[in-house]
Amino acid sequence: MPRGFQAGAWTCGIKASGRSDLAVVTTTAGPAAAAAAFTSNLVQAAPVRLSRTHLAATGAGDTAGVATGRASGIVVTSGCANAATGPAGDADQAQVAAALATVLGRPVAEILCASTGLIGTRLPVPLVQTGIAALVPDALRADDAGLAAAAEAILTTDSRSKTAGLALDLPAAGGRGSVTVTVSGFAKGVGMIHPRLATMIAVVLTDATVAPALLGRLLQATVSLTFNQLTVDGDTSTNDTVFLLASGAAGAAPVAGGSAAARRLRAAITAVCRSLARQQAADGEGAATLLTVRVRGAASDAEARAVARAVVGSSLVKAAVHGRDPNWGRIVSAAGNARRADGSAVRLRVERLAVTLCGTRVFAGEPLAFDAATLRRRMSAPEVLVDLDLGLGGGSGEAWGCDLSETYVRENAEYST
Amino acid sequence: MPRGFQAGAWTCGIKASGRSDLAVVTTTAGPAAAAAAFTSNLVQAAPVRLSRTHLAATGAGDTAGVATGRASGIVVTSGCANAATGPAGDADQAQVAAALATVLGRPVAEILCASTGLIGTRLPVPLVQTGIAALVPDALRADDAGLAAAAEAILTTDSRSKTAGLALDLPAAGGRGSVTVTVSGFAKGVGMIHPRLATMIAVVLTDATVAPALLGRLLQATVSLTFNQLTVDGDTSTNDTVFLLASGAAGAAPVAGGSAAARRLRAAITAVCRSLARQQAADGEGAATLLTVRVRGAASDAEARAVARAVVGSSLVKAAVHGRDPNWGRIVSAAGNARRADGSAVRLRVERLAVTLCGTRVFAGEPLAFDAATLRRRMSAPEVLVDLDLGLGGGSGEAWGCDLSETYVRENAEYST
Repeated sequence: MPRGFQAGAWTCGIKASGRSDLAVVTTTAGPAAAAAAFTSNLVQAAPVRLSRTHLAATGAGDTAGVATGRASGIVVTSGCANAATGPAGDADQAQVAAALATVLGRPVAEILCASTGLIGTRLPVPLVQTGIAALVPDALRADDAGLAAAAEAILTTDSRSKTAGLALDLPAAGGRGSVTVTVSGFAKGVGMIHPRLATMIAVVLTDATVAPALLGRLLQATVSLTFNQLTVDGDTSTNDTVFLLASGAAGAAPVAGGSAAARRLRAAITAVCRSLARQQAADGEGAATLLTVRVRGAASDAEARAVARAVVGSSLVKAAVHGRDPNWGRIVSAAGNARRADGSAVRLRVERLAVTLCGTRVFAGEPLAFDAATLRRRMSAPEVLVDLDLGLGGGSGEAWGCDLSETYVRENAEYST
Repeated sequence: MPRGFQAGAWTCGIKASGRSDLAVVTTTAGPAAAAAAFTSNLVQAAPVRLSRTHLAATGAGDTAGVATGRASGIVVTSGCANAATGPAGDADQAQVAAALATVLGRPVAEILCASTGLIGTRLPVPLVQTGIAALVPDALRADDAGLAAAAEAILTTDSRSKTAGLALDLPAAGGRGSVTVTVSGFAKGVGMIHPRLATMIAVVLTDATVAPALLGRLLQATVSLTFNQLTVDGDTSTNDTVFLLASGAAGAAPVAGGSAAARRLRAAITAVCRSLARQQAADGEGAATLLTVRVRGAASDAEARAVARAVVGSSLVKAAVHGRDPNWGRIVSAAGNARRADGSAVRLRVERLAVTLCGTRVFAGEPLAFDAATLRRRMSAPEVLVDLDLGLGGGSGEAWGCDLSETYVRENAEYST
């Protein structure tokens, strides 16, 4: 747990399962610098709308599509998305934020909210208010157990909780030596996952000292390399939210934009987010296999990422991975469907394209002979690796997804989730 | 069967099943005006590349993204896509076209080709050459049985053949009264279906008299309303092809652009293509239910079609349809993910949005109460109807898809198709 934060969880009764469903993170050394990326779905959940409003009130506006400001607390509810609930849903969410603001004695604009669960149902506000009053401040913890409890509480149909963290040394405040800074995060994944500009709920905390605007730029750079390269089922949710908070409590010198410290902190944040995104992919609904697609030789990094995303999102590729079928034709076809954000085609020439599946080169402008039985066995690993070389330039990128299984269909056909 | 054409099928042995796998259509009164729309996948199959080249040689270039020219014959092979097969695949396809040109005594540039099946395998050219020599010209038929045989031969994992046709009266050549003109088509569907600019294989024939450039404009207008509004699994194939041929053999006056005859012919072509697209959707791999999404109240027709397409393509909506789950939250979320062709968001405001599922209004800016048990029963029909009213303008459109079932996953996990 980075210094300057505490976290915890409570069971309010939103989830019928009786599992914990309220996660709270608060700052212990005054408001933290905050950056947030939200879903690009045109239908935005009440917590997304409220968090945008609060960051606008405490910050200096959006930086490259990421909202920045200051925050003293995050409240995440699980089991109810509070999306498409109309004005009543907005009022519900405001009451939840007010409950945390009151107990913290901070302005309500310093409270950020996220929520996940069934779309179209109302939050049981009194239960959440009771949970916040019981949890905060006495039951919050400043150690890893607090982070673990919060990570557990935000899950829905996830089979396991998703956390990541690492430490790095940054120059100390005042210029005397260095201090250890921590970057930690937790996230949930499962279904309705196909982030555009943001993803499902993820919270990343650091005790580095970073101004909100720079924090926003770091988050924007990270999201395009990590959560936006993740897909489970091609559906972008109404609730996707990534929060990145910096408490400054490690005693490190303020990180300057463009400095070596900024580059190293960005690499640490990216590593944490990449780990969370891979955990989300591996734990997709009904998934048994993590599918990783790495692309090089593209005309640009952005085009490499677009190709990787197209392959990892193809239902037919995902079904082939599920069946351990080395059906590389579907990979080639999916790569050919890659499009840039403006809808235009990426640069791709099939005669220069090479495909390697679990280490076996299967296509290089034309079909190559390979031992299908051996390749099937290699595809039985927990992670299936697809490498594409476009043979055009120096652009590279990767994306993560999962297999498409009968279980995904059953889970999403039989239950309102 | 429109006048001026004959068609038939043969079993060459491309399909292991022993079913017919070669379909041929030829003209009987000289070359027909021809228009074709092809896949926008960057990996284009050998038959797509060859047909583009041939239309460029016989025509006056592309009209609004549709290639136009003249054609004396179409050869469709099934069981092998001849895609991603390198220069050898191009040479194979040229030999197939040459075989039909030779037996017809026509220039090879008047031959159009399409193919469907497994990507990455080579066409067994000698078997196809033998089939063409046996089938053409003796075994081709100018009646509906010829069309039915051709429709049967192009299928792969389709469970039934897809044909459509209708007749309309147009002014006769020379201005004396009217003659009956026929528009008929056949198509295949199944999987890897998410057309962009074109679709899987469809052949539409008419005996109206239409210049190639106008025929191209009619096809372009039709495709955007029909095949491009169809999705089975979000994967655009390497082989998508729609051919539209006009023989002029009905004795009707040449159709002038912008005339009443052009509008009526366009409506007939659209009706035939719409029927084929709906048959393709209903017979998607593993599908039990035709999903139709109708949108009105959009800012434009194009945006209405984009919203309809986004909903019909959502894995979560498709799984809910499979499970007869009136989970309208997924419909609202999918609508919020609609994007225009340039990647920009459509105009949509959730507070104005209304959703009607199988005739029951379930959302109107906020959740509405409804009887879930009754709605589940209604959703058990062979066609599930979703109506969206965006409440913004006069734009409307529709799209077709199918449910996502365990059978889709099994079919595509267990077999190389």
